[in-house]
Amino acid sequence: MSLIGMRYLAPPHIILRKGLIAGVEYPLLAQHIAEFMSSTLFYTSLLHTSTTEHKRAVAEFCGNVAMCRHTGQVVFSDPYKVSQYNRWTFPHLDHDAESLREDNLLKFEVAQLKSMFCERAQALIHGDLHTGSIMVTHDSTQVIDPEFAFYGPMGFDIGAFLGNLMLAFFAQDGFATEGSDRKDYKKWILKTIEETWNLFNKKFTALWDENKNRSGDAYLPEIYNQPDLWQLVQTKYMTDLFHDSLGFASAKMIRRIVGVAHVEDLESITDANKRAECERKALDFAKMLMKERRKFVSIGEVTSVILQVVS
Amino acid sequence: MSLIGMRYLAPPHIILRKGLIAGVEYPLLAQHIAEFMSSTLFYTSLLHTSTTEHKRAVAEFCGNVAMCRHTGQVVFSDPYKVSQYNRWTFPHLDHDAESLREDNLLKFEVAQLKSMFCERAQALIHGDLHTGSIMVTHDSTQVIDPEFAFYGPMGFDIGAFLGNLMLAFFAQDGFATEGSDRKDYKKWILKTIEETWNLFNKKFTALWDENKNRSGDAYLPEIYNQPDLWQLVQTKYMTDLFHDSLGFASAKMIRRIVGVAHVEDLESITDANKRAECERKALDFAKMLMKERRKFVSIGEVTSVILQVVS
Repeated sequence: MSLIGMRYLAPPHIILRKGLIAGVEYPLLAQHIAEFMSSTLFYTSLLHTSTTEHKRAVAEFCGNVAMCRHTGQVVFSDPYKVSQYNRWTFPHLDHDAESLREDNLLKFEVAQLKSMFCERAQALIHGDLHTGSIMVTHDSTQVIDPEFAFYGPMGFDIGAFLGNLMLAFFAQDGFATEGSDRKDYKKWILKTIEETWNLFNKKFTALWDENKNRSGDAYLPEIYNQPDLWQLVQTKYMTDLFHDSLGFASAKMIRRIVGVAHVEDLESITDANKRAECERKALDFAKMLMKERRKFVSIGEVTSVILQVVS
Repeated sequence: MSLIGMRYLAPPHIILRKGLIAGVEYPLLAQHIAEFMSSTLFYTSLLHTSTTEHKRAVAEFCGNVAMCRHTGQVVFSDPYKVSQYNRWTFPHLDHDAESLREDNLLKFEVAQLKSMFCERAQALIHGDLHTGSIMVTHDSTQVIDPEFAFYGPMGFDIGAFLGNLMLAFFAQDGFATEGSDRKDYKKWILKTIEETWNLFNKKFTALWDENKNRSGDAYLPEIYNQPDLWQLVQTKYMTDLFHDSLGFASAKMIRRIVGVAHVEDLESITDANKRAECERKALDFAKMLMKERRKFVSIGEVTSVILQVVS
């Protein structure tokens, strides 16, 4: 498991998104990505670094402004306004795209996510951690394309990965044939979504616990090394991070259905009616998730709702 | 009203803190400071600037790391742990200082304020806007000492000013003599606290409204120029900012009573019993404010509680 800057790895690695379209299971994917995210996010956050090192690193990555600006626009703004760049399955989703632009509560929520994306230097994030930025074999997982990296909110990476797995899930009905209903594969995707968050949560808090005596500047051991307080602080941190991640996951899903850049998972469904049906379910789910994200207390609750929507 | 870098202005300007100790009223103070804060904070935030300009400016001010690190330590950490630098009115406040270090809910809250201070580049803040950084005459107000400036949470500046006015209020009983009970002056301080927030709120939202068609990247007019939504977004923004400001105000008060650097308002009360009494009231109020800040919906509610504590 490593982050590499090269666009292509030697075969037999393939882009994860293509594997998800083909219906291939990757038994170590959740574990590998949880490991990648927990390490990169923990060690670059103020849970582990000093404010001095943090500020130096934040400044270093502020140079990456063009990529950040682009992401900010295409993810948090374009889908919510009339834009020549937006597109969707036409005419099927015309009404859906219009409703989105008129949904005040949704626009209220996405504004808060955008502010967090632009203002909060929580950790060094990959910045584009979707399933097209990951190359896989049965037992290897490689994260590529780090050119969007900057200091931002951790939930943006976690949400990118979870949201793209959710899009892959919603696309599966478009790939189902008489010989292969994709039911088992859909179950595997949901299991991977659950395992990713649960393993991330476990590994991240384990790193935090292991480093409690040489911690960063956010929670000094002299103040926070007391079991009840430690528990209180960690629960709050992880709950907020969970809700941030769900928010960013939903924003990523929405922008891939009505924004400028779509995903192959849905685009490769050639029957427009079938594609629109998958997209509408994904879009409605994402809208609900953005608005209601703070009500979820576990990832299992999220996957349960997905199952209700699709089964 | 201007920000200047010089330490001393020509007489008759005096440091506001000294004026507050002497019991001098400054009828334009609230208006001037509200003007200063609304302008500096609005124009340097993403409500007015582009993400490109914002990131460039954030990077520029990341160099100011030593000052930020110092503030982070003395405001958000030292008072909550055993530190050779901490001091307080001894032995009167021994127990109070100890209770503070054992108050888990308070330490939970101050951690969130510290994270916001270190991570959130909301606007270019003065970074040390207490009553010792302001020079005044009857009709002139000059902000000095901008060497702490960096991109941080707006509430840190607003809270610094309000928190120091509150300290000045709690110190007044220590200055009362038979000939002068300071009752009217206490009323004037509370009125100034109220007016500062209310005028800031008014001026800040007015700037936001005036600029709605050439807004920054946070709330694009194409998405948010709709009366109900505009109202929803502004109310949320100003409510969060109000609660952030109260949180930072309380942190600033606490650190001036049990931390390394105290304020002349309280220090100049020579009778230790009297001083300890004033300090304990201020400390208890500040602890309540940090924990309960999200329950307050107006600054008038805050000043009412202060009056109950002291009268």
